[in-house]
Amino acid sequence: MNADPTTSIVDLKARIKSFCEARDWDQYHNAKDLAIGVSTEAGELLDLFRFKSLEEVEGMFRNAREREDIEDEMADVLFFVLRLGQKYDIDLATALARKMEKNELKYPVEKTRGSNLKYDKF
Amino acid sequence: MNADPTTSIVDLKARIKSFCEARDWDQYHNAKDLAIGVSTEAGELLDLFRFKSLEEVEGMFRNAREREDIEDEMADVLFFVLRLGQKYDIDLATALARKMEKNELKYPVEKTRGSNLKYDKF
Amino acid sequence: MNADPTTSIVDLKARIKSFCEARDWDQYHNAKDLAIGVSTEAGELLDLFRFKSLEEVEGMFRNAREREDIEDEMADVLFFVLRLGQKYDIDLATALARKMEKNELKYPVEKTRGSNLKYDKF
Amino acid sequence: MNADPTTSIVDLKARIKSFCEARDWDQYHNAKDLAIGVSTEAGELLDLFRFKSLEEVEGMFRNAREREDIEDEMADVLFFVLRLGQKYDIDLATALARKMEKNELKYPVEKTRGSNLKYDKF
Repeated sequence: MNADPTTSIVDLKARIKSFCEARDWDQYHNAKDLAIGVSTEAGELLDLFRFKSLEEVEGMFRNAREREDIEDEMADVLFFVLRLGQKYDIDLATALARKMEKNELKYPVEKTRGSNLKYDKF
Repeated sequence: MNADPTTSIVDLKARIKSFCEARDWDQYHNAKDLAIGVSTEAGELLDLFRFKSLEEVEGMFRNAREREDIEDEMADVLFFVLRLGQKYDIDLATALARKMEKNELKYPVEKTRGSNLKYDKF
Repeated sequence: MNADPTTSIVDLKARIKSFCEARDWDQYHNAKDLAIGVSTEAGELLDLFRFKSLEEVEGMFRNAREREDIEDEMADVLFFVLRLGQKYDIDLATALARKMEKNELKYPVEKTRGSNLKYDKF
Repeated sequence: MNADPTTSIVDLKARIKSFCEARDWDQYHNAKDLAIGVSTEAGELLDLFRFKSLEEVEGMFRNAREREDIEDEMADVLFFVLRLGQKYDIDLATALARKMEKNELKYPVEKTRGSNLKYDKF
């Protein structure tokens, strides 16, 4: 129920690798199709919120079935990001740390605090 | 350089929480806009491969600059998925494990081995 | 300035065909990559509204530069849908009419009037 | 069967306006949610081609049922682009013409002929 503190990125990659190899899916899992997977699953996640007000969206998280639908779609996005990382030897924790250092420069606290502007608009 | 074995999901969530709170972004980070973030960043990842052959895509991973571009876009997708999980108290490792159990049933090994069909097509 | 009443779908397809053939792009414009184009450009359109309130979004249409940004991204989505239609001999007006007849059945007026529910939820 | 030569953009907008007003959907059809609609339907179109080789994708257009699935998803994308144009008084033919003039400059024939490079890579 509370596995995020004890689950490493490598644990997740290993689980996914084993799932895909049992199905002999390496042949289909090139980077381009995996990126399509990330994108189409992200679309399914977003679709849950289409035409919903922000209040309705908050309510979905308090409804067990709707919350599970949301979590399922998030899991599908994660699946493809992790699979892409596993297939192409990408250390995701390092990639994320490096990108966030770039974001620290792109979005300096003093300029972006409380703002929703993009980095090219301030 | 090799942080995935020792980085937990909670470590990543904590890093992202601190980044966003320093910028007072909680007010903008409702689930709907975060899902938009997941989707638009997934589009940027996919855009790197548009009109590229599978051979060209493989070559991009051997080019340091292009590989970093790909990793950066993957990091951006991860950022929003993790932020959504952190903001709404979703245990992502549990969500992924549960979804993969559903996928084990939807895609039984004996029926899907070596196949690229969707679960509603076999 | 007001060309929609006098421009047919075939006019737009012809303009796009000529643009792409002058660049010898037929070789890259297979259906899969064109669908990637539709999706990534749709992401760029959506990205303009990320983290914006509904009021801010309305304001963007009253700002000449922001309105042009929105229209440009809509044009990019249209470009790829029309190119896909032109390349694969799809009569888009017929496809849209047929799909809307299906939607009339999926979303009957008496059940959907004033509702934002999906067809599988009422 | 062959309606694209005689159907104007305004004809399509009028059909969609009437469909949406009969359902009293104006209240949900703000630009942000309509852009979400464009993006999620584009994802459904792309999803049809996920893990398919280019040869398999070509074959889908020769199969009546699969061809109709593709056309339906293209129609859904068009629906939301046209609805957004109709709702916000955007002349789509003009927007497309203007964007293609920008693209003529971004992608000059002599530099882009036979190339799949983005404008910022040549």
